[in-house]
Amino acid sequence: MTTEPSARATNAPTVAEYLLSRLAAAGARHVFGVPGDYNLRLLDAVVDHPDLEWVGTANELNGAYAADGYARVGGFGVVLTTYGVGELSALNGLAGSFAEAVPVLHIVGSPATAVRQAGAPVHHSLLDGDMDHFVRALDEVTCASAVLTEETAAMEIDRVLSVVLERKRPGSISVPADLVDTPITLTASTPSAGAHLAAPVSALAESATAMLESARSVVVLVDHLARHGVTAELDALVGVKNVASAVTVAAKGLIDESAPGFLGVYVGGVSDEAVRSAVEDADVVIGVGLWWADLSSGGFTVKLDPARLIDVQPARVDVAGEIVDGLPMANALVTLGKILTDRAPLPVREALPAPFVEEPSPCGALTQSVFWERVQRFLRPGDIVVVDQGTSSYGLAPLRLPSGVDVIAQSLWASIGYALPAALGAQLAAGGKRRLVLVTGDGAAQMTIQELGAFFRRGLDPVVIVLNNDGYTVERAIRGPKAPYNDVAHWNWTALPAALGAPDGTSVHRVETTSELDKALAACEGAAGALAFVEVVLDRFDTPALLCRITESAARQNGA
Amino acid sequence: MTTEPSARATNAPTVAEYLLSRLAAAGARHVFGVPGDYNLRLLDAVVDHPDLEWVGTANELNGAYAADGYARVGGFGVVLTTYGVGELSALNGLAGSFAEAVPVLHIVGSPATAVRQAGAPVHHSLLDGDMDHFVRALDEVTCASAVLTEETAAMEIDRVLSVVLERKRPGSISVPADLVDTPITLTASTPSAGAHLAAPVSALAESATAMLESARSVVVLVDHLARHGVTAELDALVGVKNVASAVTVAAKGLIDESAPGFLGVYVGGVSDEAVRSAVEDADVVIGVGLWWADLSSGGFTVKLDPARLIDVQPARVDVAGEIVDGLPMANALVTLGKILTDRAPLPVREALPAPFVEEPSPCGALTQSVFWERVQRFLRPGDIVVVDQGTSSYGLAPLRLPSGVDVIAQSLWASIGYALPAALGAQLAAGGKRRLVLVTGDGAAQMTIQELGAFFRRGLDPVVIVLNNDGYTVERAIRGPKAPYNDVAHWNWTALPAALGAPDGTSVHRVETTSELDKALAACEGAAGALAFVEVVLDRFDTPALLCRITESAARQNGA
Repeated sequence: MTTEPSARATNAPTVAEYLLSRLAAAGARHVFGVPGDYNLRLLDAVVDHPDLEWVGTANELNGAYAADGYARVGGFGVVLTTYGVGELSALNGLAGSFAEAVPVLHIVGSPATAVRQAGAPVHHSLLDGDMDHFVRALDEVTCASAVLTEETAAMEIDRVLSVVLERKRPGSISVPADLVDTPITLTASTPSAGAHLAAPVSALAESATAMLESARSVVVLVDHLARHGVTAELDALVGVKNVASAVTVAAKGLIDESAPGFLGVYVGGVSDEAVRSAVEDADVVIGVGLWWADLSSGGFTVKLDPARLIDVQPARVDVAGEIVDGLPMANALVTLGKILTDRAPLPVREALPAPFVEEPSPCGALTQSVFWERVQRFLRPGDIVVVDQGTSSYGLAPLRLPSGVDVIAQSLWASIGYALPAALGAQLAAGGKRRLVLVTGDGAAQMTIQELGAFFRRGLDPVVIVLNNDGYTVERAIRGPKAPYNDVAHWNWTALPAALGAPDGTSVHRVETTSELDKALAACEGAAGALAFVEVVLDRFDTPALLCRITESAARQNGA
Repeated sequence: MTTEPSARATNAPTVAEYLLSRLAAAGARHVFGVPGDYNLRLLDAVVDHPDLEWVGTANELNGAYAADGYARVGGFGVVLTTYGVGELSALNGLAGSFAEAVPVLHIVGSPATAVRQAGAPVHHSLLDGDMDHFVRALDEVTCASAVLTEETAAMEIDRVLSVVLERKRPGSISVPADLVDTPITLTASTPSAGAHLAAPVSALAESATAMLESARSVVVLVDHLARHGVTAELDALVGVKNVASAVTVAAKGLIDESAPGFLGVYVGGVSDEAVRSAVEDADVVIGVGLWWADLSSGGFTVKLDPARLIDVQPARVDVAGEIVDGLPMANALVTLGKILTDRAPLPVREALPAPFVEEPSPCGALTQSVFWERVQRFLRPGDIVVVDQGTSSYGLAPLRLPSGVDVIAQSLWASIGYALPAALGAQLAAGGKRRLVLVTGDGAAQMTIQELGAFFRRGLDPVVIVLNNDGYTVERAIRGPKAPYNDVAHWNWTALPAALGAPDGTSVHRVETTSELDKALAACEGAAGALAFVEVVLDRFDTPALLCRITESAARQNGA
């Protein structure tokens, strides 16, 4: 026998094995993305990993959207692309994750270390010798990034991942192709000392107790920075007897809207009047994860009295001007909940009027208003609802969601086309155990339609509803209602599922009236286990009322 | 009559009018992109402009690809997006224009000046108060950029446009929404003094004459930096009697391949041997626009003797080490052509063997080799051929193109999915007067398929050929021939045109044999005036020979 050099001289894991084990430990079970020659070795490692599954998407932007949707349901998402072409294509998706505080890791398979150091003019580079153009572009939309080297790979992987998970923002790790199978140099990590929370808990109690004990009305107002890791604490807080609650448009689904204390959606001065006054006139508002943006604040028309506001941020609480630092959001919510539970019960609140009044005629043409009333009835506890920005997200906002419904929407970054790939990620994160209902517009769906094929490829069973209003109605509401630039190509929507791989017998419907819609939704109920597709034909100028109010406000601001 | 304030107090054009007039003066007749609320006023101005037409694309990456394809045919392209979501989505397209030296202007409709200055948390921003994240990302892939202000708008528009047109690289101009209708402050521009070219012309003649006069063989070797503005001068140079010529894979279509002196495609050490030796052993090689990249150089295996090389760059010539600066490429080519015309005729060259030897059996399954032989016969003088990176571009490379054929491909940046939207741009740039043949793979087509709808919407008539080899065969040639990550969703390709808006009676074909292909191509000939679609089923491991040779070389380098 000849002596062959051992393939692996050490028992240390390779860089790829180490990285993938960290992803799995952070809760990822799927990795989304597109192959490219700089990442193929890395993909071999993904395919070989016992706890990870590769989910190829049709392009990288869709992969980033899918990872974002996955993280919103599962807590953490991963997109993996190739250098240059792939990482730039994904960039808009990563930026959305940044704007909306979603922890996504972008892994880039990049040219070998020697090629990078030499600045060789390889494909997917700008051919100008500078190999760092794209990581600098990524740095604009991530909270941490690293280009791995042999010496620092373990440390850098740990650093980027911990920042991503801590700050709930996207990060990127670039893996030069030569390092994939290199044994990793492990650095002994010092376990971080447990935070000493007794002091800030006392400080918060001291600041907040008098305010909460004397209040006759308390509203918990939840915004999108409360998305991750505080579900149980939020549920407990809004469950305190006679505490009222409201959400921003960016926080739909974060609390139980079937609870008796739920008021509705608060959008500053363009809220329904009953909700607006209930929030703004409350003796105390406990804000949870508030981070106002134009669309969530009704064009910056929020009026919350700082003297009556307890503002709970991810690591800090502001109690009417007194700052308590170093307290995680979960602990702050528990502390405030305890004060409210221990005090004398809050007075009973007056009930608000029910949000829906529409009495649709079953034979007339469909309207947005009727459509959303039907969605209200169609939703079940535990559903995942994915809505694209535009008429879909603003149509959904006023609904009273059944308990346990997650809403996936990009309400603030507002990149249309997001919803369809995000639905792929969300459904995989739920392990196929929850029904998923996707509602998107025709203009939005055209942006990313290729990902519809992924649902058939993987045998997933969402209800896909395309609101066909013949163009960009969200833009028509702002400017150019009849301008040609708000039109889109005319597609034969009901022929699309079969073209993109739907099996024979797939439930596909086109509806123009209420009764047709009712039949189609009933058929969707019956199609569980397979994708069902409904094209809903709506008037091109029919716009949910909330969208009109918000876009008027935004248009004033942008000079549009 | 009441006295109303005049809508326009001055005769000066608005910022939008000025910008659009500059685009038209630079040769743009179409503007590609997607509406968004920050750019709607700008789009009103586009729609109103007598010389410009708005071409809405299904998403922004497609818009950037279309503008790039447009610029390759028409000399200059424009993509217009909204802030944040739109500009980041387009980034990969812009980067491709940078890497491959294509002059594209990216116009971004952005938040109003006051909003930007305040760092207000508006939609499509990262909500962190920094409004310059995206222009900094764009700066990584552009040669010039500007965010317009009222005072400097005219100057900045002129500056960015002139750099884009001069350097043949992309640039970006961000137009805050409030400036669109603002009268522009015109600065008197000093006409640039005509360059004094007599001295560098003499210097080049002095350096090059002896070398060219004593040569017994001269090869003109053309690469992609010769893409713009030197067609006539190149034609004249390669038309000199007994001068030989060759192109790189990135320069297909830049010279007349039907000329007797045409050798073929030079790819360094992976060239066909007859081409390699004819180029490398020539007494003098006149390089025109050489800028070697891994894929064009056969993995950096080019061997050109610097002592026998006249290297003509866009503004500089290197004659065997003697540098002549300040001479535009066109003037250099004229000067060199004159020397060759004035000298004693070059000796007759030996003819090279014909590149195609395949004798396909008409009944057997199709192969890549047979397919490309059929494409060779199908092409006509004056066609535009658009090929995606992968088996398409490398299948086309060895063909001998009829005269006047333009080739649109992203051979170096190599972003798959580019071809389909680029074909839209290319066909519009040609004013519908030239036949366009698009060849793309299934994996590539899935990336950007929504833009197929744009051809139907505009009544365009390309021949669209999708090579269905069931996945990413270009990646399979590199690694993971049977790995799941190189598979894609199974689509019903022949059902797609109808789903995306094809009129009844559209010519759609699926072919698996040579005779079926022949019938389909004959039908395409008959379908002129309307789009024809052909799905060509090929074996998943069948790869053009040149692609195998190049990817082997690239794989070695990347450690894949």
